[in-house]
Amino acid sequence: MATHIAANDSSPIVDAEKIKNACKGLGTDEAALISILAHRNVTERKLVRVAYEQIYHEDLIQQLKSELSGSFQRGICNWTMDPAERDAAFINEALKKETLDFKVIVEIACTRTSEEFLAVKRSYQFLYKHCLEEDVASKTNGDVRRLLVAVVSTYRYEGDEFDESLAHLEANILHQLIENKAFNDDEIVRILCTRSKKQLFATFTTFRNTYGTTITKGLSSDSSDEYMVTLRTTIRCIKNPRRYLAKVLCYALNDLVAEEHELSRVIITRAEKDLNEISDLYFKRNGITLQNSVAKKTSGNYKTFLLALLGNNWV
Amino acid sequence: MATHIAANDSSPIVDAEKIKNACKGLGTDEAALISILAHRNVTERKLVRVAYEQIYHEDLIQQLKSELSGSFQRGICNWTMDPAERDAAFINEALKKETLDFKVIVEIACTRTSEEFLAVKRSYQFLYKHCLEEDVASKTNGDVRRLLVAVVSTYRYEGDEFDESLAHLEANILHQLIENKAFNDDEIVRILCTRSKKQLFATFTTFRNTYGTTITKGLSSDSSDEYMVTLRTTIRCIKNPRRYLAKVLCYALNDLVAEEHELSRVIITRAEKDLNEISDLYFKRNGITLQNSVAKKTSGNYKTFLLALLGNNWV
Repeated sequence: MATHIAANDSSPIVDAEKIKNACKGLGTDEAALISILAHRNVTERKLVRVAYEQIYHEDLIQQLKSELSGSFQRGICNWTMDPAERDAAFINEALKKETLDFKVIVEIACTRTSEEFLAVKRSYQFLYKHCLEEDVASKTNGDVRRLLVAVVSTYRYEGDEFDESLAHLEANILHQLIENKAFNDDEIVRILCTRSKKQLFATFTTFRNTYGTTITKGLSSDSSDEYMVTLRTTIRCIKNPRRYLAKVLCYALNDLVAEEHELSRVIITRAEKDLNEISDLYFKRNGITLQNSVAKKTSGNYKTFLLALLGNNWV
Repeated sequence: MATHIAANDSSPIVDAEKIKNACKGLGTDEAALISILAHRNVTERKLVRVAYEQIYHEDLIQQLKSELSGSFQRGICNWTMDPAERDAAFINEALKKETLDFKVIVEIACTRTSEEFLAVKRSYQFLYKHCLEEDVASKTNGDVRRLLVAVVSTYRYEGDEFDESLAHLEANILHQLIENKAFNDDEIVRILCTRSKKQLFATFTTFRNTYGTTITKGLSSDSSDEYMVTLRTTIRCIKNPRRYLAKVLCYALNDLVAEEHELSRVIITRAEKDLNEISDLYFKRNGITLQNSVAKKTSGNYKTFLLALLGNNWV
């Protein structure tokens, strides 16, 4: 369930005009921007952006970028972007970092549906004139490349069917390879990166039932091993994306300086989807609501904006 | 340019009724089936199939399968199928062979556009409840798997842009690896399977201009080496798909017993696209027109059908 509350009776033209007014003159009326944009759903935001371009011959995102700064600027710009375009930009940004951010790439590839991720690939090509796979491949090498390119390449089947005997067979293969610490074996990559998520759920469940331990338990938790980080993230994002994202939020709220982008990325990308369920998991883990954590750890317009996405109506 | 001549003034309902009449009773009026189906374009055939299903509650393909036999049955059924569904079926069939038919998989993956091949993947999932990538991966292993899964996975960029300096860089990488006979190096797979076709044309051209030889020249032509066959086919299908397909037709027409499926596959899948250009290349290579070769080597309804697709109007 979404946490985000949309207005439902907005006019894109009126919104565009109000945004222009909020940006006029020397200062910027950030509260007005939040009261409009943070309360429009994905279609409404798209229409506001189109209306803004039509009326003022300016891209709304560029306008917001020039008016605002810091985390608030980044957050409200990302929120206003089309989801596929935004995910493409997150991946491009992850690929441009000095130390590639494998986790972001895996998170986007594995927590979106096949159709959503296909839209990300289309946006990526439109924006960067390259295919996403080629940029991932040319920025990586060795085992990490093999796994990461496979993660972003497959157009996974999304049907509900799964094969129980295949789940047994592949749970055994995975168990044996993990026992032998052959973490970079081709078979692990094949199973994780080509099987449907439903099939993999069955495989992971069989693994736990047969061997009395979860598949991630046997993996090394060495955070300096890029391959292992990518592998663990892939399994977690497929196995339980909400729990994974709740954990990302925990880390982010514990160390906002290092992980600020993580906080806004998860809130922005899930606010219209399943942020309610992610918040519940966060609460169970931390004994404090996500809203309260965000309210404690952030401030100013950024705080107001994030809390609005978390369901505080008309803050 | 297409060789195929469509009627342009057909009625799907009348066509469906005529087909039903041609199938009534003990014998089948194959000439009537050819005179209708071989002269309908892809959209018209789709509408005839829909009309047939609506009127007779039977799938036209199943009806044709039960009425006809041999190469003619296979040909006219494949022709009547939706192109993406047909390609998905070709790949599924190639994967079910005792010795996997890598060349067919590569041909379809590399000679279709990204959008066409995406449609093939969608059809494959609809028909077989698996993703294409997972079936390719689970039926192969080692180097062949690595190359073949990469060939079918990437959603290639199709823009016209290419990077001249990248072409130089990657032509050098390819040349060095080929010189060292490191044919299965990850870099070869990465370059061939993720770069756009325009970028690869530039790389292949640079390769020839810099080293005075084509990229395929340095590759072993051992036809028992599955990896090398897959690699050579991949390069040829990207470099010059029409020349590759003209060669497939040559081989097929020289040994129709072994290669019959190849003949009808190429004619059926290209008749509405570029079979004219492929025919020209065939003529240049063999000094005999493709029509004449087909007329000499085939017979009966199958011959009439193929010649109709090759542009013999109302044969």
